[in-house]
Formats: sequence, C-alpha cells, structure tokens
Amino acid sequence: MRSDKIIVSGATILPMTEPECSGSASDGGAKDGDAQKYFTGSVALEGGRIAIVARDGCAEGEQRLAEFRVKGDFREIDGRGRLLMPGLVNTHTHVAMTLMRNLADDIELMEWLHERVWPFESRLGAEEIAWGAKLGIAEMLLGGTTTFVDMYWHEAAIARVARDMGIRAVLCPSFLDGERMAEFERDLPETIAVADGCDRLSVRIAPHAPYTCSEENLRRAIGLAKKYGVGAHTHISETLDEQRIVRERYGCTPTEHLRNVGLFELPTIAAHCVHVTGGDMDILREFGVTAVHNPQSNMKIASGAAPVAAMLSRGVNLAIGTDGACSNNDLDMWDEMRTASFLAKHTAADPASMPAYEILKMATVGGARAIGRDGELGVVAEGALADLIMLDLEKPHLCPRHDLVAALVYSAKSTDVERVFVAGRPVVENDRVIGLDLPELMAEVEATVGRVKQAI
Amino acid sequence: MRSDKIIVSGATILPMTEPECSGSASDGGAKDGDAQKYFTGSVALEGGRIAIVARDGCAEGEQRLAEFRVKGDFREIDGRGRLLMPGLVNTHTHVAMTLMRNLADDIELMEWLHERVWPFESRLGAEEIAWGAKLGIAEMLLGGTTTFVDMYWHEAAIARVARDMGIRAVLCPSFLDGERMAEFERDLPETIAVADGCDRLSVRIAPHAPYTCSEENLRRAIGLAKKYGVGAHTHISETLDEQRIVRERYGCTPTEHLRNVGLFELPTIAAHCVHVTGGDMDILREFGVTAVHNPQSNMKIASGAAPVAAMLSRGVNLAIGTDGACSNNDLDMWDEMRTASFLAKHTAADPASMPAYEILKMATVGGARAIGRDGELGVVAEGALADLIMLDLEKPHLCPRHDLVAALVYSAKSTDVERVFVAGRPVVENDRVIGLDLPELMAEVEATVGRVKQAI
Repeated sequence: MRSDKIIVSGATILPMTEPECSGSASDGGAKDGDAQKYFTGSVALEGGRIAIVARDGCAEGEQRLAEFRVKGDFREIDGRGRLLMPGLVNTHTHVAMTLMRNLADDIELMEWLHERVWPFESRLGAEEIAWGAKLGIAEMLLGGTTTFVDMYWHEAAIARVARDMGIRAVLCPSFLDGERMAEFERDLPETIAVADGCDRLSVRIAPHAPYTCSEENLRRAIGLAKKYGVGAHTHISETLDEQRIVRERYGCTPTEHLRNVGLFELPTIAAHCVHVTGGDMDILREFGVTAVHNPQSNMKIASGAAPVAAMLSRGVNLAIGTDGACSNNDLDMWDEMRTASFLAKHTAADPASMPAYEILKMATVGGARAIGRDGELGVVAEGALADLIMLDLEKPHLCPRHDLVAALVYSAKSTDVERVFVAGRPVVENDRVIGLDLPELMAEVEATVGRVKQAI
Repeated sequence: MRSDKIIVSGATILPMTEPECSGSASDGGAKDGDAQKYFTGSVALEGGRIAIVARDGCAEGEQRLAEFRVKGDFREIDGRGRLLMPGLVNTHTHVAMTLMRNLADDIELMEWLHERVWPFESRLGAEEIAWGAKLGIAEMLLGGTTTFVDMYWHEAAIARVARDMGIRAVLCPSFLDGERMAEFERDLPETIAVADGCDRLSVRIAPHAPYTCSEENLRRAIGLAKKYGVGAHTHISETLDEQRIVRERYGCTPTEHLRNVGLFELPTIAAHCVHVTGGDMDILREFGVTAVHNPQSNMKIASGAAPVAAMLSRGVNLAIGTDGACSNNDLDMWDEMRTASFLAKHTAADPASMPAYEILKMATVGGARAIGRDGELGVVAEGALADLIMLDLEKPHLCPRHDLVAALVYSAKSTDVERVFVAGRPVVENDRVIGLDLPELMAEVEATVGRVKQAI
C-alpha cells in the first residue's frame, strides 16, 4: 500500500490562524495588515493530519521537516507559485438539488415551490438523490469545498456517496410535519449507520423550519438527537412570511420559539437568519448557534439581507453556505464569499463592512466551529485535519498581487483551485476529481432528470 | 495568406435576436419560453462578418452553407457540445486599473481615492498604462468580452494595445478640471489617429463626472467632440455626494445638468446611474443615452443600487460594465451579469425582477446599441460583425440543462469560454489568447507595479 505521507513544499501558505514559528514576515509583496497573514513554507501530511508546518527560515520547523524527509516514503508536491490554504466549508446546502439547477428561475417563491420544485421532488427516490449528490460533490470538490453540511431526505444515500467520493460531510436528515416525519425516523438511524463506518462523516437532525414543524415533532426529534448524541441543522428566519407565521402561532420570533422548544440544547446550525432581531442574535450567541449566511440564495429569491455585520459584532459565530443549486444556481463558495462581502457593504452603505479576511474566516474557521471541529478544520496548523486546497496564483485575474487576502475574496475563482486534499488524501489533481468519469456522471444526471420530468 | 473563412458547425446557437429561418424548435431540452431562444446549427464567417446562420433542418440555410463549403478554403470548427453566442460588451471600464487590483479594499471612499488610488495613479505614464491595459484585455478576452468601452487618460496608448491584441474597443480620453484638461486635448486627437487606422476601434470624449468638470470645460469638450464627430462617455449619479454637490451648484440633478450643458447632443454612455430620478430616466430615454449598470463596483464601494428595472420599464437602453479592477476586483462579465440580476431581485424584493434573458440582453444587444452598433454587434445574425464566443457546456455547474439561458446567467463562469472570435478572427483558442505569453505579461505587470510603488 502506498504511503499516505505527502510534503507540499515552497507554497504560499494562508493558515487562517497564528502561524507556527511566527517571526517577522520575510515575504515580499505583503502589505500592512496582510503581512502577518501568510508566509512561504512547506507542510507535511501524515495519517490524515497535518504533521508539520514549516515556515521558510524558521529553523525549528525546517529541522523537523528534514527529519520527516529522512524517513523517506513520501510524495513531494511542488507548491511554488501556489497558495495552500484550508479547504472551504459549505455550511448549508441541499446537495441533491443540483438535479433542479436552473429549473425554477425568475419566478415568485410560491410558484417556485408549488409548480416547479415540489412536483419534481415528489418523484425523487434514493437513487435519483444519489446522482444529484454525486454531481454536487464533484462540483464542490473541484471548487475547493472539502466539507459540506447537507439537509435533505434520503440522507443515507447521500452519506454513501460522500463516503465513496472522499469529501467530508455532515448529513442531516430533514423532517417537516406530515409523512416526512416517518421517513425521517427511518432515515436518521440508517444515515448514522453509514456515518459510523467513515470518520469523515457525521450526522445531525434537520427540522425544516420553525413554521413547518410542530412543537410535538420538534420535541420528538430533539429526543432522538439526544438518544443518538447528534446535533441539529435548521432554517431560521429566512423570510418575512416565516416571521409573521411564527409570531401569530407562538407570539415570538422563530429563534425564540426554537430556544423555547429546546432545540438549542443541541449543537445547532441555523441557515439564513435573514430577519433575526438583536434579541435573537443574543440567543444565538448564548447557545453557541452558528448563523449560516447564504447571500446569493437570499438575493435571488428576494428574501432579504442577513445582518451579518451586526451578528459578528454581537459575537455570533458566522459561516457561509451556498444553499441548494435550485436557488443559487451553483455550489461555488468563491462566488458566495464575494457576494457576502458585497451585500454587507451595500446593506451597511459602508465599504469597510465585512472585510476580506472576515469573509474568509466565515468560510473556513467559522464553518469548522459550526460543526464542532474548531481548531481541527479550517486552519493550516500542526495536528489539524489535512483538509487543504491549492490554488494556482498565476492567473491574470490575480495579477498583480497587492493583497493576497483581498485577491482571494474579490478576484479568485473556483476554477483557480487545482488540488484538493481531504483527510490527507488527494481527491482533486490537475483540476480533476481523481477516479471520477465526469462526462459519464453528467450523462447519468441528464438521464435521471429526463426520467423524473417524464414522470411528473 | 490564410483564408479568413471559418465554419462553426453543430453548435447550440444563442442568437440574441430572432433566428434566421425561425421554425418550430426542434431541440430537446428547451423549456417553455426558452425554446425559441436558441437552436442547433452552423455559422459561416467571412470578411470579418457572419455570412451564414444555418439552423439545422432549415433547408434554405443548409443549402447556402453547402454552397459555401463547395468554394473550399475554410477552416471548420466542431461546435458540438458547445454554445455559440455573441461576444460580451463591457460597456464601462477603466482597463488599466488592473494595475491597482486589490490595492484598495475594505476602506472608505475618500481614503480609497486620496491615500491609495490617486498617489498610485500620479505615477502612471503611457508605458505603465499600456501594461495594465494589456493585462486587462487578456483577462477580458479569456472571459468572452469582445468589446470594451474604456475611460482613462493616455487612451492613445490603450488604443495601440487594443489594436494589437485584436479586441474591439471604444477608447474615451477623460478629463476633469485642472491639468488633466490639457492632457485630454493632446490625448484626444492622438487616440483618434490610432483608431482611424483600425476598424475595430472608435473614440469618444469622457468628461469624468458632472461634479468634477466645469461647465466651461464641458462645453469646450463637447465642441471638440462635434469637430471630430465622436460621442461621449461619462459617470452620472454614482454617489449621493455627487447628487448633493450638483444640486447645490446648479440647482438640478446631474442628468438634468448634463442635458442643459448640451452633452446629450452627442451619443452618450452614462455609467452607474445609481441615484437617477424618474425625470432623469425620461431624459436618458429621450436623448437615447445608455445607462451602464456596474453592480459589483456599486455594492463594493457602497454607492447604492441603480434602479435598472425602473429604467428598463421606462425605455432606457441598459448595458453592463465591470468598472475598473480597483473596485470590483476583476473584469468578469459573467459575475457581473449574475450580480446584476441578484441585486435587482433583492432591491425590488421580487424574484421575478430582471430575469436572465433581460440580463443577457444588457450584456450583448444593450452594449451594442450603447456604442451605436445596434444589429451589427451583440447578435448572431447574417451580416453582423463576427464577434462571437464559444462556451464549453460540458461542465458540472452547467448540468443538468433545464434552461440554457438561466444557466448562462446563474451558473456559467468566465472560464467556460474556450474560443473567442473578434471581427471573424480567432483571438482565444483552447483557453489561451493566441500569440500572448501570459506568464511573461504578468511578470511585466508585477515589475511595473513594483516600480510605481517605489516611486510613491
């Protein structure tokens, strides 16, 4: 069996944390404020983790790297002209909805749901959902997303695809009132069984939203989550309609309601959070709930702009998600980061709002914290999981290099990602998902979609 | 000399106009409303123009294509699995500002100008500007932009670069009060002289903005434009500050002021138009002034959201521009189209606002009309100029293909463009600008920027 030891040498490294051996920056081109954020050096990977981060010119790190080399049996990857950084965490998506990409655009939300999405979804079984997941995971890996947090049904099928494709994932079987509840109760243990066999996978329950799940069903699912020892992932305050319905039904905000029901006793990820109040933000912070910003979906469906700058200043953990490809219409975290910054600046009428590094933190360390892997994911640090991506910096849209951090958020493209490692294993090389026949996959997806449409 | 005759066969063609030989749609996959917008067929290029558009199954078109083939001496390009559409028109940019890409982010506008942009710009001469233009034109061509409308100084230098690189351009020497006026008066005839030698180039005057140009200078420049027979390109109502200053100084809106001074007697392109009133919109329509939407720059600098849906319904011609790479921070028209639609939907709180096809029209036919080439550019039609782009549709983010038009606006990437023709000549093939050593160019730009920074 081939060794799992890898050295990436001579790369520009953006650790998203205090670098090991942090001396004065020795690199040219770094600018005020930016200079301490990245450095040139090498990393060694072993056993799925980052064994060494050796900054060029740091004697101790270089010494340990030399010792690693002496033991031999490693693969060396030339990082010159490349950026090595943590893989991105897409903290809210419905990956199988790639099947509905560009199916329902430029229409009202109710028409979107009733005439396009629901009739299509009603024809989806585990097999169709697995094809959609496979396509979406390929798209995410190619663009540098190494972890995704999913919400759908037939999550056990998605879990198997994630396991086989080498990505890291949090699979969250979802429920809402009606027959989906029984499906959920079958899907949850089945998904957990798949995840138990793969250390890249974990599971959470996913109540759809406070206005689509009864208190009784919420409490029942919370009980199951406690029994299995898993967390939660839900939508909160996506639309004004939701605010109104919950207010009428329970006399409080969606966030207050979910707290009252006890959901936040579980580690919770809350997608959207568009219409949260100041009081809601304090609840989110108090219970350690992560707010996931989905700016492209929110703009496209015209839900509003989440108050991310206010949530940040109140201490809420923030992450970024693409939402599903039916309301975005891609799973591109680079586009999403850029839009997050632009929308925050526009909303605040302040070009200094949500600067580039804060946005990068949302997409890396914020996502890691959301899934309870703070310090283990979202950073390039010794001992952390080796979920890393390498970008080709030699692109015209990244030239000249006044500020690397700004370049990543405001100019980089998902197609600049040329290598991806998950748990130390290469999964993308030369812009291709290793072992995947992409044209064949796309043909299967088209055939699947054709069958679904015929059945509607 | 090699023949300039080219046949692109078997492509999916999006003509952005009524297709020749418009029968019933024979293509699979097309959806209600979308079905008539594209078809499968071939085009023949000759003499810089589109000689034949032959829809598959249209006997008359296929007959003429067969006759074209019989004459021989053409190059055939396989269009299967590819989309052929009009090249994009970037109707407002400052292409040389690529030199300042990621130089001045996440800061207030006045700091942006006074502490970053102006000190840097003060060190730029024709040589530096030419390097910036070369980089920006490479980026635009690679992403499928075949025409750009520029505003800067040393436009004669930019014109030479555009001439040599094969792109189509409208070069607009700019002025504002002070010493720039004399520079402008030298630059204008020099730019016109370069453009006179290249049928892809034309020239306009570019008053910087109604608050930075005195009435006297405006009238003087208008006189020069009339003497040379050229149009105008200006910024209008980009910020609230501008609205206030013009109101205090002239007692009217910036649009009213420019009309009063007589600028709109020239064919005029007005960038931004963020804070235009209903009355302003009527003036723009009445005088045939094009409003160029720059949504990413407007969001990033927090200028506001231009009322594009209202302008459209009032009959104003709309186009899209990236603005300069110092406030965007790229020259990617696909990103810009997507943001234009998202911002319009967000602003109107209406997911049906500014649907995908309207956005594509802004980036093609709207831009063509803006520069007075209505029907000649921005369309795939017999007799039109052969400015065409070919996209690879076999990408995961474009799969499945429920709606091709939506896919282009909501999912396509600039890197999906693999071939570009300007005036019938291939300028991009296999994702490369033909004849350009891109790594060498990027090294030159870095060296140029290094010299400029040392001199500040």
